[in-house]
Amino acid sequence: MIFISSKKYVIGIDFGTLSGRAVLVDAITGDELATASLDYPHAVMDSKFLDGSPLPPDFALQHPGDYIEVLCSTVPRILAESGVSPDEIAGIGVDFTTCSPLPVTADGTPLCFLEKFAKNPHAYVKLWKHHAAQKYANLLNETLASLHPSLLPVYGGKISSEWMIPKVWQTLAEAPEVFEAAEYFIESADWVVWQLCGNFVRNACMAGYKAMYVPGVGYPPREVFAALDARLSDLPDTKLGGRIAPIGTKAGGLTEEMANKLGLRAGTAVAVASGDAHVTVPALGIGSEGKLLAIMGTSTCHMILGGAGEPAKIVPGMCGAVEDGIVPGFTGYEAGQSCVGDHFAWFVENLVPASYQQAARAEGISIYEYLARLADALSPGESGIIALDWWNGNRSILVDADLTGLFIGMTLATKPEELYRALVEATAYGTRIIVENFIEHGVPVEEFYAAGGIAEKDPFTMQLYSDVLGMEIKISGSPQAPALGAAIFAAVAGGVYPTVSEASAKMGKLKELTYKPNPEAKAVYDRLYAEYKILHDYFGRGGNDAMKRLKAIAAEAKANKQPF
Amino acid sequence: MIFISSKKYVIGIDFGTLSGRAVLVDAITGDELATASLDYPHAVMDSKFLDGSPLPPDFALQHPGDYIEVLCSTVPRILAESGVSPDEIAGIGVDFTTCSPLPVTADGTPLCFLEKFAKNPHAYVKLWKHHAAQKYANLLNETLASLHPSLLPVYGGKISSEWMIPKVWQTLAEAPEVFEAAEYFIESADWVVWQLCGNFVRNACMAGYKAMYVPGVGYPPREVFAALDARLSDLPDTKLGGRIAPIGTKAGGLTEEMANKLGLRAGTAVAVASGDAHVTVPALGIGSEGKLLAIMGTSTCHMILGGAGEPAKIVPGMCGAVEDGIVPGFTGYEAGQSCVGDHFAWFVENLVPASYQQAARAEGISIYEYLARLADALSPGESGIIALDWWNGNRSILVDADLTGLFIGMTLATKPEELYRALVEATAYGTRIIVENFIEHGVPVEEFYAAGGIAEKDPFTMQLYSDVLGMEIKISGSPQAPALGAAIFAAVAGGVYPTVSEASAKMGKLKELTYKPNPEAKAVYDRLYAEYKILHDYFGRGGNDAMKRLKAIAAEAKANKQPF
Repeated sequence: MIFISSKKYVIGIDFGTLSGRAVLVDAITGDELATASLDYPHAVMDSKFLDGSPLPPDFALQHPGDYIEVLCSTVPRILAESGVSPDEIAGIGVDFTTCSPLPVTADGTPLCFLEKFAKNPHAYVKLWKHHAAQKYANLLNETLASLHPSLLPVYGGKISSEWMIPKVWQTLAEAPEVFEAAEYFIESADWVVWQLCGNFVRNACMAGYKAMYVPGVGYPPREVFAALDARLSDLPDTKLGGRIAPIGTKAGGLTEEMANKLGLRAGTAVAVASGDAHVTVPALGIGSEGKLLAIMGTSTCHMILGGAGEPAKIVPGMCGAVEDGIVPGFTGYEAGQSCVGDHFAWFVENLVPASYQQAARAEGISIYEYLARLADALSPGESGIIALDWWNGNRSILVDADLTGLFIGMTLATKPEELYRALVEATAYGTRIIVENFIEHGVPVEEFYAAGGIAEKDPFTMQLYSDVLGMEIKISGSPQAPALGAAIFAAVAGGVYPTVSEASAKMGKLKELTYKPNPEAKAVYDRLYAEYKILHDYFGRGGNDAMKRLKAIAAEAKANKQPF
Repeated sequence: MIFISSKKYVIGIDFGTLSGRAVLVDAITGDELATASLDYPHAVMDSKFLDGSPLPPDFALQHPGDYIEVLCSTVPRILAESGVSPDEIAGIGVDFTTCSPLPVTADGTPLCFLEKFAKNPHAYVKLWKHHAAQKYANLLNETLASLHPSLLPVYGGKISSEWMIPKVWQTLAEAPEVFEAAEYFIESADWVVWQLCGNFVRNACMAGYKAMYVPGVGYPPREVFAALDARLSDLPDTKLGGRIAPIGTKAGGLTEEMANKLGLRAGTAVAVASGDAHVTVPALGIGSEGKLLAIMGTSTCHMILGGAGEPAKIVPGMCGAVEDGIVPGFTGYEAGQSCVGDHFAWFVENLVPASYQQAARAEGISIYEYLARLADALSPGESGIIALDWWNGNRSILVDADLTGLFIGMTLATKPEELYRALVEATAYGTRIIVENFIEHGVPVEEFYAAGGIAEKDPFTMQLYSDVLGMEIKISGSPQAPALGAAIFAAVAGGVYPTVSEASAKMGKLKELTYKPNPEAKAVYDRLYAEYKILHDYFGRGGNDAMKRLKAIAAEAKANKQPF
C-alpha cells in the first residue's frame, strides 16, 4: 500500500568525511533534480588544531559549525537550481559518518561553542577515524571479556576504538572538565537533527552499531561501566541518555529559525538520522534479505539484511548485527574490510616506477587507469602472486588490527602491475571470505550489490570481484547514493511512503550495467582462493603470529631509536 | 719453504660473463702493475644468434673466438703498460665462468669454426647461464634418484641445468649431428689453456664441481648414462675423455705461435685452469680451513675449505664438495644463493617511485646509493618487514628453483626503502642459514670474507651482513680478485711458489677496512632471523607448497592465454 502526500519532493543530506552533499529528489520517480556540496571549512583536524598547535597522534576532530554551514549553503542552492517550491518539500533527512560524537549542554550547545572550552580539543567532534582512544577500547574489550564474555559476540567480537564508549572514556580520562560539563555525548548526526527540528532524538542505527545499545535490551550492564571507571557507572542513564528513536521515523518538524536559514517551510518533516553506509542500502532499492551491498572506497562496508522479523544471528567477525538497524523490520548486519582502495593508493604512491608515470601522462590517463589496463591484460593466476589484504589490519572476519600485509610468489620477472593486481585480487578474496562467513552462519547471500568510488569508477576491479565471487554484481544507479538514501528516509518521515522498503523500491536505483562472472576465470580463482584461505588461516588464526611479533619488534625499534 | 724463480712476474686472466680482464702481478709482493680488459665482441648471444635470427628461450651462447681476442688484446697491453720484459714472466693462468662447454674436434678446433657447423647454435659455447637444458637436468635427476639415490648428495642433492651432462645431452637430443662430430665436449677454460700450450688438459676443479667427476672415483657409473640415452653410455671415456689434471699444476709451456701473438716467450708456464669463484679464494689470502668467502654480485657463491686432508663431508644443499677443488690439499665446498644483487636490481627497475629517482638525480648520486642511505637510516626491525630471498629460487640450502619470493609485514605506512632493506636483510639471513648449515654438518666457519661488486661498493649491505651474521667481514684487497687468483695459480705453475697456499699467503690481499658487528643490531637480528627461519622452513620444506602451486597455476595460465 502506497499513499502519496501532496508534497512529492524530498531532500537528503550526506555528511561525509570531508564535505556535505545535498540532493533534491522527486520521491515519486526517484529523479535527482539538483545537488550541491560544500567542503567543511575546517576539514579534518588530524595533525593541527584550530590555532595551529599540534594534536596528539591519532586524533581526528571536526568543527560542528561546519555542518550547519553545509545546511545553509547547500539547501538554498538545490532549491534554486531545481526550481522546486519549499511548499512541495515533504521532508528532509540526513545521514552521517559514525561514530562521530561530540559533547553538548542540556540545550544541545556543543561545548566547543562555549568560550571556556573553545581551546580544548576534547570539546570538538571526535570523527569516526579518531583512533586515539585505542587504549580505552583495549581496556573495554578486556573488561567485557572477563566480566561478560557472552556479550562480545553481540558486538561482533570486539569493540573498536572508533566507537562511542572508548571515545567518551577518553574524554573523561584526558579532559575530565569536558566530561563533567557535558550533559550528553551525542552523535553529530543526532546533533544536526536536533538543530533542524529542536528535538533531541538519538537514532537507533548508530546507537546499535556504535554505542553497544541492543534494542529491547539496552546498554551493557552497569557493572561493566563501573569496572571501567566509577564516574562512568551511570553513563547509559546520564550522558548517553535521551530517547532512542527507530530509523524510518520522524524526529520532528523544521524549526522556524532553521526554516528561515534554509529557505524551507517551518514544520517540514525531519527524519531520524542514520549512518552513511546504512542509508545506502535502500538507495540501491534493497529492501529485503539475501542482498549484500558492498560500499567500496578506501575501505569497504558490507551491509546485508537478515530474514524479515528474524532475531539477530551471531555471525563471528561482524562489525555488528542490529535489529531494525538498516531497514526497519530486518536485522541489519554490517561487516567491513579496513583497507581496500587504500591498498591501491599505497601502491601508487610508493611503488610505481617513473616510466609508468610518464607513460600514463603521455596518454593523458591517470596512473590508476594505466595500471588497471596493464593488470587487466594479465590472466587470472598468470602472475603467480597472492597477497593478504591486511595493510591496515583485518576488520572482518578476523577482527585483528595487528595483522599486516603479505605478498608471495614474486620472481625476477614480476612487474608492478602484477603486484597491483594481486592487491586487487586479495581484497576480492577478503570479500569472498566475508560472503562465505555470512552464509555459513545462517545469513544467506544471494545477490551482490556495490556502491562507492570503486564501484562507480573501476570496471577492472568490479569485473575481477565478479569473477572471484562467481556472482553478478549490480551497481548503484546514483553516484550520490548516501544522499539519495537520506532522501528515502525523508520521504518516509514526510509521509510520501509508509515504509522504508516501499520508498526504497520506488526511489532506489541501479545501473543498467552489471558485472557477470566469467566461469573460466572463476575456476582459476577458486584455486587461488584456496591458497589465500590457507595463508589467511595460517597467519590470521595463530598458525604463525609472525605479523604480530614483527609489529612488536618494530614498535620497540622505533621506541629505542636514537634521535637523529 | 719458499723458493724464488728468477722470473718474478705473472699474468692472470679472468674470463667473465661479458668481458675478459688480464692483470700483471709482481708475484713476490702481490702488487698489481697493470690491468687491461676487453668486452667480448659477441657478448652473450641470448636472444639473437650471430645472423640476427632468434634463439630459443633460455639459450645463452658465446663465440670462442672472443676469448682469443681477449688474450691478444689484453696481454700485450699489460706488458707495455707495466714495462715488464717477457723474459721476466714466470707464468700465465686463466680462470673462467663454469660450466661453459663447447664441442671440439680431436685437434681442439671448435665445431663452430667449421663452415659446416658455423650456423648451428649448438656448435658454440653454452655459457654457464644457458638454462635451456633444464628438461635434461630434470630427467638426469630423476634417473639418478631412481638408479643411484646415494650418489645425489655427492653432487649437493641436485644436478643443475647449468652443468656439463645436461648441456651435452641437450646437444645430442637437439643437434645430433653436432654431438656426433664432436670428439670432445670441454670447458671453455680448458679450451683456452689448450690454445695457449697445445695440451688438452681438463681441470679437476670444473670436472668435480660441474661434470660430476669425483677424484679417485670417476664419473657416475655407465648404467646412469645408458639410462639417459644409449648414445651417452660411453661418454666418460669418449667425449668427456682426456686427462684430468689437478689445479695448481702446469698444463704446459706457451706455444711458439701463441707466444708471438701475445708478445711473451715460448715455453712460459701455463697453469691448469680453474673456476672464477674458486680462484678468488687464494686471491684473498685464504689457504686454510674455517674461512668462508662470499663472492657477492648478482648472485653469491660461497667457498670454504674443509680440514687439510679430510675427506669430503656430506653437507646438504651444497653446490658441491670437491677434494682439491679450490686449493690443493683441502676439500673445497661450494654453496650459493641464486639471487642477491639481482633482487636489488629488480626492486630498482620495478618499484622505485619517480620522486626517489628525481631526488637521487638532484643529488647526483645513483638510485642505489639513495635507497641505501634511506634504508640505512632505519633501525634493524623498524620496518616490521621480512622477505624470503627466493625471487630466483633457492640454491643453498634448499636446492629448489621453484621457490619464489615473499614479503610480510607491510602497512599503509610502509615506504620503498623498507622493502629494499628487507630484501638486503633477507639475503643476509640466507647467508646465515648457509653458514649455520656448514657448521652443523662438520665444516667449521670461523671467519667471513667477501669479494665481488657488492663487497666492493656497498658498505650499507656489508655492515648489515656483519650485523646479521655477528661476524667481522674482511674484504678482498683487489678489485679484480679473480684475475689475481689466476695469477696466483700462474705463480705456482711457473715455479715462483711450490704450493697455492704459499703463493696465496704472499700474493692474496685484504683491505684494511673490515666490517664489525654491532651487538645491539645483532640482538634484534637474532629475533628477526628466528622469524625468517620459521618462514623458510614453512614455505621451503613442505609446510605449505603454495609457491610451487602458484607457479604451476601461472604456467598453465600463460599456456592457456589467448593471444592478443
